[in-house]
Amino acid sequence: MAQPQQSDGADGTGAGKPPLRVGMVGYAFMGAAHSQGWRTAGRVFDLPMNPELAVVCGRDATAVRAAADRHGWTDTETDWRALVERDDVDLVDICTPGDSHAEIAVAALAAGKHVLCEKPLANTVAEAEAMVRAAEEARGRGRLAMVGFNYRRVPATALARRMVAEDRIGALRHVRVAYLQDWLVDPAFPLTWRLRREQAGSGSLGDLGAHIVDLAQYLAGERLAGVSALTETFVRQRPLPAAPAGGLTAVGSAGTGEVTVDDAALFTGRFASGALASFEATRYATGRKNALRIELNGERGSLAFDLERLNELSYHDATEPAAHAGFRRILVTEPDHPYLDAWWPPGHGLGYEHTFVHQARDLVHAVAEGRAPEPSFADGLQVQRVLAAVEDSARKNSVYTPIAA
Amino acid sequence: MAQPQQSDGADGTGAGKPPLRVGMVGYAFMGAAHSQGWRTAGRVFDLPMNPELAVVCGRDATAVRAAADRHGWTDTETDWRALVERDDVDLVDICTPGDSHAEIAVAALAAGKHVLCEKPLANTVAEAEAMVRAAEEARGRGRLAMVGFNYRRVPATALARRMVAEDRIGALRHVRVAYLQDWLVDPAFPLTWRLRREQAGSGSLGDLGAHIVDLAQYLAGERLAGVSALTETFVRQRPLPAAPAGGLTAVGSAGTGEVTVDDAALFTGRFASGALASFEATRYATGRKNALRIELNGERGSLAFDLERLNELSYHDATEPAAHAGFRRILVTEPDHPYLDAWWPPGHGLGYEHTFVHQARDLVHAVAEGRAPEPSFADGLQVQRVLAAVEDSARKNSVYTPIAA
Amino acid sequence: MAQPQQSDGADGTGAGKPPLRVGMVGYAFMGAAHSQGWRTAGRVFDLPMNPELAVVCGRDATAVRAAADRHGWTDTETDWRALVERDDVDLVDICTPGDSHAEIAVAALAAGKHVLCEKPLANTVAEAEAMVRAAEEARGRGRLAMVGFNYRRVPATALARRMVAEDRIGALRHVRVAYLQDWLVDPAFPLTWRLRREQAGSGSLGDLGAHIVDLAQYLAGERLAGVSALTETFVRQRPLPAAPAGGLTAVGSAGTGEVTVDDAALFTGRFASGALASFEATRYATGRKNALRIELNGERGSLAFDLERLNELSYHDATEPAAHAGFRRILVTEPDHPYLDAWWPPGHGLGYEHTFVHQARDLVHAVAEGRAPEPSFADGLQVQRVLAAVEDSARKNSVYTPIAA
Amino acid sequence: MAQPQQSDGADGTGAGKPPLRVGMVGYAFMGAAHSQGWRTAGRVFDLPMNPELAVVCGRDATAVRAAADRHGWTDTETDWRALVERDDVDLVDICTPGDSHAEIAVAALAAGKHVLCEKPLANTVAEAEAMVRAAEEARGRGRLAMVGFNYRRVPATALARRMVAEDRIGALRHVRVAYLQDWLVDPAFPLTWRLRREQAGSGSLGDLGAHIVDLAQYLAGERLAGVSALTETFVRQRPLPAAPAGGLTAVGSAGTGEVTVDDAALFTGRFASGALASFEATRYATGRKNALRIELNGERGSLAFDLERLNELSYHDATEPAAHAGFRRILVTEPDHPYLDAWWPPGHGLGYEHTFVHQARDLVHAVAEGRAPEPSFADGLQVQRVLAAVEDSARKNSVYTPIAA
Repeated sequence: MAQPQQSDGADGTGAGKPPLRVGMVGYAFMGAAHSQGWRTAGRVFDLPMNPELAVVCGRDATAVRAAADRHGWTDTETDWRALVERDDVDLVDICTPGDSHAEIAVAALAAGKHVLCEKPLANTVAEAEAMVRAAEEARGRGRLAMVGFNYRRVPATALARRMVAEDRIGALRHVRVAYLQDWLVDPAFPLTWRLRREQAGSGSLGDLGAHIVDLAQYLAGERLAGVSALTETFVRQRPLPAAPAGGLTAVGSAGTGEVTVDDAALFTGRFASGALASFEATRYATGRKNALRIELNGERGSLAFDLERLNELSYHDATEPAAHAGFRRILVTEPDHPYLDAWWPPGHGLGYEHTFVHQARDLVHAVAEGRAPEPSFADGLQVQRVLAAVEDSARKNSVYTPIAA
Repeated sequence: MAQPQQSDGADGTGAGKPPLRVGMVGYAFMGAAHSQGWRTAGRVFDLPMNPELAVVCGRDATAVRAAADRHGWTDTETDWRALVERDDVDLVDICTPGDSHAEIAVAALAAGKHVLCEKPLANTVAEAEAMVRAAEEARGRGRLAMVGFNYRRVPATALARRMVAEDRIGALRHVRVAYLQDWLVDPAFPLTWRLRREQAGSGSLGDLGAHIVDLAQYLAGERLAGVSALTETFVRQRPLPAAPAGGLTAVGSAGTGEVTVDDAALFTGRFASGALASFEATRYATGRKNALRIELNGERGSLAFDLERLNELSYHDATEPAAHAGFRRILVTEPDHPYLDAWWPPGHGLGYEHTFVHQARDLVHAVAEGRAPEPSFADGLQVQRVLAAVEDSARKNSVYTPIAA
Repeated sequence: MAQPQQSDGADGTGAGKPPLRVGMVGYAFMGAAHSQGWRTAGRVFDLPMNPELAVVCGRDATAVRAAADRHGWTDTETDWRALVERDDVDLVDICTPGDSHAEIAVAALAAGKHVLCEKPLANTVAEAEAMVRAAEEARGRGRLAMVGFNYRRVPATALARRMVAEDRIGALRHVRVAYLQDWLVDPAFPLTWRLRREQAGSGSLGDLGAHIVDLAQYLAGERLAGVSALTETFVRQRPLPAAPAGGLTAVGSAGTGEVTVDDAALFTGRFASGALASFEATRYATGRKNALRIELNGERGSLAFDLERLNELSYHDATEPAAHAGFRRILVTEPDHPYLDAWWPPGHGLGYEHTFVHQARDLVHAVAEGRAPEPSFADGLQVQRVLAAVEDSARKNSVYTPIAA
Repeated sequence: MAQPQQSDGADGTGAGKPPLRVGMVGYAFMGAAHSQGWRTAGRVFDLPMNPELAVVCGRDATAVRAAADRHGWTDTETDWRALVERDDVDLVDICTPGDSHAEIAVAALAAGKHVLCEKPLANTVAEAEAMVRAAEEARGRGRLAMVGFNYRRVPATALARRMVAEDRIGALRHVRVAYLQDWLVDPAFPLTWRLRREQAGSGSLGDLGAHIVDLAQYLAGERLAGVSALTETFVRQRPLPAAPAGGLTAVGSAGTGEVTVDDAALFTGRFASGALASFEATRYATGRKNALRIELNGERGSLAFDLERLNELSYHDATEPAAHAGFRRILVTEPDHPYLDAWWPPGHGLGYEHTFVHQARDLVHAVAEGRAPEPSFADGLQVQRVLAAVEDSARKNSVYTPIAA
């Protein structure tokens, strides 16, 4: 035990509050993380509605029941179409691979549900456009849609956004971003669904690149105008998984199959303001496990963040006298840091999963207040357009490719 | 989303498992953290029993009801004596200030409950001795007792313990530990219960020092033989809090009161093996928010940990050729790291509160298997004896003071 | 004082050794650094020849005499043509801006001198080609030429090279490099010669980019095949310097002049082996003073270096069990690290200028042994071709541009 | 090459300046470092006198001649008594083990020389007192004496001192200091003179502890009032060195000898102001090569330094709003940092040996201006008294022991 400032809200959680009944589709990694978010948000934050883990959906009845018990969901479904039609579901939370996002989201919005959709919004721009149209139409009926770029909700990135908005770094010159993982370095790693274009849409680009494109634009407060890109698939044949998991149909001959997505994507770009950006997304950065790193350099200061040290934000204030200036490590655990008033005393750090608690919190507030949540489906579409431009540029010998508006 | 290795257990949580009904006394900072632990453990780990947040106890009926709603407890009590007698409580979790630990724990054990008691075990050695006797007696009746030194359950410290046990650092030479906070630097910070000897027992010594004494001995795998100590109270008068919170009776004149505990405690010591140790516990280390730092140097290697970067363990392997040796930063998020098989993919860090999830997990296993959990009340008593020796030494001009056996 | 291992060589420095008489052209920043190198190398290392600071050359007689006295040169010249013809000069060290490198180097080689030429080798590929031809011809007459990419001679980068050569990181996947400075962030910084194409050749590209292209290829042990680039000049008009220093003729009207070089250059590329590379060179990275950072990821490991912490090399050994693996910080101060046997005991770090001491040491050995030193003029030309491809690509909408062979 | 701000002084070095003729006794590790200092100071700084490496002294004529050639000394002596009497020596620089400091220094001062004496000032308080008396008497004759606590002259520590003097950290609460090395971890390391009390005086205490006591008091701007200490010798018998080097007479039987000094010393203390201090000096901190670390916590801020990253100073400004506060890493390479106006552009770091260049610079200024240099022999004596109190306390069961005034 350490410090006494922590005070618990005194009003209780569910008592007398309207419920927000969630139906979640998919229950693997993202489903587990979202479950933590929905289950915890109202225990920590004083929310205007009471999130309920109403129904979880998966194709295998036994498995989905076990997942429901494990993660705390009351009921189960084996067909997402049934789930989106249930009267006792207010919000559909889509945690499936990207190839099913559009169909589920459009149906859920049509059925009058709010929708939270995992990133990337879709596997293609066309799907994403359909989703945006559905979201706009639903908005007229008071239904809200949000895409799950959870890394906006790390307290340190939210603080970075606040500091940029306060003009603490001034005119932006550079944004450099990398999302480095290493789980494909071993050529014996099997050919999972994430390595097949038909399910995953793309490789590190959609998985990691989508995150960093969204985060870079969010922190910069402006959008990319164009990109120039290289992509590469280092290991083109991989062993098939022991059992076709997650719906992957066996492909290729003799126990191996073709990797049909990128292993790594590098791109440079220009922001609308003229600032330069560099991006790298890879699963081959040996020793880097989840190193999402972003740095912004402006005329008045700089900000830097590394997801592997997610409770810290690095800040350089260039308006200080040079003799005392330096990058400072802000431990983002103070009560006046974003999301932190409800958590622990200073210095008691949060983890990865808390981004999903914060996401749930923010979405509950938006629903209760009838406000459009951010990032919107339109934001998700724009990220998709950046990714499409990256793929276009890579196909066209890296030529600079404007982002479609 | 990032990596596909994460698989969810398939057996569900509560289904068919015996319950472990918890009654918690106190619901402030520690109560909130313990609630998270009890609520989450079975959602993440495949536990042999199903923890239930049965009853929470506090003196104010309205406030405790609100806390119950907030943190997810079913029922409430306003008298801990009633709680420990309830048939529908299997385990009593004591989250009150140290002056009530002994009375509640002894009563709960006598009433046939398992007990989890927050650290420090008690405010005096005599109280702690009574608790150990009660625990030993209850052990004969199959009831278990554990003290809540949660920092043993950071994956990085648990990994450090495993590596020491594997003899990776060899004969121990040095342990240096500091627990640095800064929330008392401002002389205007009010006189809370933590600054009064009658409730808190001691100041930074019992609050922070207890943690580092336990952690140092746990990681070293051996006990301190004696200590030499300095303590200090830098600010001796502080303003009284606006309202006498937490049972603090107003003391002193004209709106200020006397600080009757130490602000900082420094001590050196010798381990049984002859290794040297240095300890520092303070609430005046400006800019250090929750910096529990420990380093062990052995003949074959070294280990270092900093709670402000709790997902990392630093390790130097001195058996490597000097040309390639160096302190390595192990990101303690791999599946074969302690507790990590149930969490997220590599690189997706945990936070402070997860220590309480792990504590709940370990205690549930111990109860289900009838094993004595660690750290035991005897361990807590021994820490208390170290703290008593520290206070003795400080009173006696820092003379080296053996730890009572 | 700290450790006893340090032993001084017993043979003395100059006694009986042949001299290597150096004539240096230019005496500003680089001249000062080279002077330190020549003056110190034989005091620390046991060299086969005795470097003598014979003559320094500058246009202003008074200023060059003062510089000679300050930096320890015996004689002076005001015309480099006179210097290269002197019989008492064995080696010409060129520390002028890039626009004069080719002329001086070609003349010096023709005059039978060895040549050390600061980087970048030249301002154009054509000049560099002429220099390579001159160097090849001189080689036949036993005269040697080297280009001064001093960052190969940081002990940590030399160790990295050795570890790559030992195949410690395996098949290369990624190289990411940035050279970040911030001295142009202020729009009021004056228009020095470095911001004019006619003298500097290019901006951050030639100044910083040349360093990182060379270092990346050196460490990778292979060459770039092609690049795709963006360049930018953020501030296009700057105030003229108070006095036209370094030969800059005033340009522009009313006290300002045009910046005719790039402020920043971003490029991606492919190595011959298929590894991907990303490069960034900028003088607008607020708060980054001299942050040359390079990371290599291979199938068996990774290496990382940051010039702002130049005594450290970061190494991840991916062949270790995951439970104990991590980036280790090698303090590159051990006797069996490159260059370190002659310096201080472990942990006593070196600084920036020591790269020039090591450069002098290596060149003296090459001259004494009649071996071609590295990096050669051909290496410098190849870097120039990469920079030319960067500029080509930037002009052509970032299209991927192969490096001329 | 990087930045153009560097300008060379225009006045030259030796021309017309009075010489300061140095005679150095001893030429091992410290002698090499001092040689670098004397040789370089006037090449970098614009000094009022011209240091000349006049004479170096050692017992073996051949070896000292070789050392003179290596390090650039003109003449040699084999008897320090002859050296201190030479008319062509103005300043005697004592780089021998501590047992000869007093005799040489007293004789040199009596002979009318200025004296620079390596730390620790002496092996006993009595010797140090005699040296102070000699220095005071010589002061009347215009002769100056300084003790070589070179770590005051790291730019980062000098900046820290300046910031403390500017009251940037306010009322001091804590100083924690450790000097960690590991070169004795291996029990097979031989019994050198540093491990014998008769030559070294003490072990890590005098070697490392002297440095940190001086640095702590220097940075704090106040003195220790008392200490409580533990010392330990972990390995009591070590193999004798192959050849009796440095005057060590073989001791012990059968090829091993007794270690008669401490391996490690831990002590806590109180400053005059009531601030607390903790110290640790050891040669058994596996993996720590030269880790002199100091942190000061005051009511308004904190400062931290680590010699293994000597170009950095860490600073926390507690007067900042908590939301933006954090320890900042000041890269101490700016022109307005101590000593830095004469060196390289920002970001181009210095190394260990530069402390000796700065020491030479400061001493030359003091001599030229007739000012008493710091740290004085009296400062060195006071450090010796602290070390004596540490040994006293360690002998007396760690009892708190006031420092003699």
